[in-house]
Amino acid sequence: MRTLFHFWLSPSSRKVRIALGEKGLDFEMQVEKISDRRPEFLAMNPAGDIPVLVEPDDGPILADQNAICEYLDEAYPEKPLLGSDPAERAETRRLTAWFDNKFNSEVTENLVGEKLIKRYLGWGYPHAPAIRAGLQNIHYHLDYIAYLAERRNWLAGDDFSMADIAAGAHLSTVDYLGDVPWDEHPEARLWYSRIKSRRSFRPLLSDALPGNPPPSHYADLDF
Amino acid sequence: MRTLFHFWLSPSSRKVRIALGEKGLDFEMQVEKISDRRPEFLAMNPAGDIPVLVEPDDGPILADQNAICEYLDEAYPEKPLLGSDPAERAETRRLTAWFDNKFNSEVTENLVGEKLIKRYLGWGYPHAPAIRAGLQNIHYHLDYIAYLAERRNWLAGDDFSMADIAAGAHLSTVDYLGDVPWDEHPEARLWYSRIKSRRSFRPLLSDALPGNPPPSHYADLDF
Repeated sequence: MRTLFHFWLSPSSRKVRIALGEKGLDFEMQVEKISDRRPEFLAMNPAGDIPVLVEPDDGPILADQNAICEYLDEAYPEKPLLGSDPAERAETRRLTAWFDNKFNSEVTENLVGEKLIKRYLGWGYPHAPAIRAGLQNIHYHLDYIAYLAERRNWLAGDDFSMADIAAGAHLSTVDYLGDVPWDEHPEARLWYSRIKSRRSFRPLLSDALPGNPPPSHYADLDF
Repeated sequence: MRTLFHFWLSPSSRKVRIALGEKGLDFEMQVEKISDRRPEFLAMNPAGDIPVLVEPDDGPILADQNAICEYLDEAYPEKPLLGSDPAERAETRRLTAWFDNKFNSEVTENLVGEKLIKRYLGWGYPHAPAIRAGLQNIHYHLDYIAYLAERRNWLAGDDFSMADIAAGAHLSTVDYLGDVPWDEHPEARLWYSRIKSRRSFRPLLSDALPGNPPPSHYADLDF
């Protein structure tokens, strides 16, 4: 069986879960606490990071979220997630990187990282100024989503793509904390409601961390 | 003419310069000081980052270093830089991400970022503990390069690839400061001497920042 080593509220793990779902591929999940630095896990990924995907039938062991997602699109090309020509694919990758890098460092790390991941990994306590920065920065990103969604069918163009997956993966972790100001960003909310109703996204909406339940609107398709 | 907006000691700009050189593509360069936040530049890349590549003849405007490099390999497929099958390409991308993310945050940011980029962009003074961390961390990465180079012809496998380009781009900026302990890492030095002697790499070796000349061994092929 295909196995994904992951953590529930890691956006990069969620990205791979959604991509697997879009491709219609079955997989089982195993939670990996990276701070344990298990030798068997480090042997699979010397970088020590999740996600890691182990393909079935002695297939490859894949590490790095971007490498895994690109692999899935190459090995299972039906229903492409990057676009059809090089320029379209560059636009999808630019926006995917926007969320994986810029949104991640400006928003996700400051909110999900500070409030949840730090404690889970035993890396200390939340840093209040970082949380304030994250709550500020998210407005600009929701405006950018609205700007794109008003001009295009999906974020990178006509088709649902890896850019929507990356944006949805990150926003869903922040939404789990109840920190997305949806009321002030109706266009971004409209785009996110389309993401939420995709079959590939549904499993994420039933994630629930012991002691850290999500707010009631988290799994609600009509939020 | 194809134009690359870049900065001399930015590893991601250097990555694109080397990739363009490997593909045999002509280009001109324009230095972009991202802290100026020029409106014309932000219109090309709302993320405000270098590198940006403007393709000739009304071709696409490309942003994000990974998106640019993937584009170059797709649009100019002769002499592929990622590998031939999906598993090989996943390994190349895993290692490319190793240098672009892990080496970057553990070494490049701590040394080139602190000593040089911060001052250039007017973002403050070097932070001594960060510099100490960078000087420590680089040993582990040079060991990993040696580990790979002893087992493979190039870092990701039989062929020169984007992984070598990423590693070379980052190491060359640290080497510009004279901060690579080559004497203690002869296998990594051997690999780097092969990188240095490639035609695509040569232009980087004549870069010289006013007031910040490189050490004498920087451009020396027999260092």
